[in-house]
Amino acid sequence: MTRDQLIQNIHQRNSFLCVGLDTDIEKIPAHLKIYDDPVFEFNRRIIDATRDHCVAYKLNTAFFESLGAKGWNTMQKTFSYIGTSHFTIADAKRGDIGNTCDMYAKAFFEEMKVDSITLAPYMGRDSVDPFLKYINKWSIILGLTSNPSTADFQLSKLGSGKPLYQEVISRAATWGNDGNTMFVVGATKAAMFGEIRNIIPDHFLLVPGVGAQGGSLPEVVKYGKNKDVGLLVNSSRGIIYASNGEDFEEKAHQEAKKLAIEMANLLR
Amino acid sequence: MTRDQLIQNIHQRNSFLCVGLDTDIEKIPAHLKIYDDPVFEFNRRIIDATRDHCVAYKLNTAFFESLGAKGWNTMQKTFSYIGTSHFTIADAKRGDIGNTCDMYAKAFFEEMKVDSITLAPYMGRDSVDPFLKYINKWSIILGLTSNPSTADFQLSKLGSGKPLYQEVISRAATWGNDGNTMFVVGATKAAMFGEIRNIIPDHFLLVPGVGAQGGSLPEVVKYGKNKDVGLLVNSSRGIIYASNGEDFEEKAHQEAKKLAIEMANLLR
Repeated sequence: MTRDQLIQNIHQRNSFLCVGLDTDIEKIPAHLKIYDDPVFEFNRRIIDATRDHCVAYKLNTAFFESLGAKGWNTMQKTFSYIGTSHFTIADAKRGDIGNTCDMYAKAFFEEMKVDSITLAPYMGRDSVDPFLKYINKWSIILGLTSNPSTADFQLSKLGSGKPLYQEVISRAATWGNDGNTMFVVGATKAAMFGEIRNIIPDHFLLVPGVGAQGGSLPEVVKYGKNKDVGLLVNSSRGIIYASNGEDFEEKAHQEAKKLAIEMANLLR
Repeated sequence: MTRDQLIQNIHQRNSFLCVGLDTDIEKIPAHLKIYDDPVFEFNRRIIDATRDHCVAYKLNTAFFESLGAKGWNTMQKTFSYIGTSHFTIADAKRGDIGNTCDMYAKAFFEEMKVDSITLAPYMGRDSVDPFLKYINKWSIILGLTSNPSTADFQLSKLGSGKPLYQEVISRAATWGNDGNTMFVVGATKAAMFGEIRNIIPDHFLLVPGVGAQGGSLPEVVKYGKNKDVGLLVNSSRGIIYASNGEDFEEKAHQEAKKLAIEMANLLR
């Protein structure tokens, strides 16, 4: 998907919601267990229940890998079911180099046909460049994450006085451009969005941590929005596990709609 | 596998060689293409040809993921074929947090039954802790990698004057212990092994970059060896693609044996 298409979808649906399909087979409603592939059945229904109110779906690869080869297949079927109307994210946080990156790019961009993959920056430019060769595909690089131990390294001050995460974002922004690179910035760090927007005014940010992790949507929009909106805000558990009964689709629909309305109001 | 078992295997085989199964379906000998699962057939034969001369096998997950669900299955069969006589490494470079880590740990430690997984440290302690809960399983954390763009972040000087990679190694060494944590240190950085051994005298180091990437085995041993050897030196392409003809097993055997003899001489 191109940047223009993504922006157009955001304006048409009046939403920058990304629904996170962190589907845990232990947590899906009991009445789905009769299906051959209960995780796919759950994903399919959540997608149908939410697609009018979101612009992206993010699949956390770990949840599918934990089910082995069958889970890999479920991931592929789910991406295929989403289709091209929504921006698709393989939340894989891969990070390797050279021919290994080529293999990951092949796995996700060619086989899974996703629009984007999340990448860890520790190994530097070598770990991102191979993904940037693909046209209309996106690298989403970890900038500042929403977990407590971001302080271990991401917030470490460099000799220049800058924290590491700012150095990562400024360097990595030069490897590609705002049409093929995004950054992960956690919603729990909303006050730092200002600094980040000074470095990358135009890039899209993928923002986890709203909802279960305590981030505030109004703050994210206040400090993080740019002229093209420039935000994809993810919610996983708050939507997909809104109910674990027979009404899970209806509840997921309501939660997604509620967030989308909140987003529309904040965009006015 | 316990630390004691690993050390015992190293002394018994007089080798600290790890064979890297970065098996690219495009590069395996043509006569294997008739098999249902040519990658597994290749791996099986390479394992049989090298197991007397090595103590570990490292499977680069990207190469299997690029083949989809079938590749995931091939990876599982390969780990299972290796069995418990050798230390097994899922070179996955995962790095995520909380319940996502739990899923990766389940995927690799419980389903794949590997001894260890490589992990990226950018998200801090949250991204390693869940793996350390498993008894006799190992986290192998990226310390200083062997690629050119290590300079982007790993060599960045912090306010303290220390480069980031040293901070990563010293902090991460406190999360677990030398019986459940190793570090990746690239062979192309042999001169830096001294600094690293000052920080972690007892931990095992997983050392890629000997061979194709230009690292020197005598230098790695000179600066990196500790009282328990404390090294697993990986070679992938130099062994598995030593020939792509019908003699590939024999050539792989010769290359592994040659490295093992060199190792035995350096251990004297």
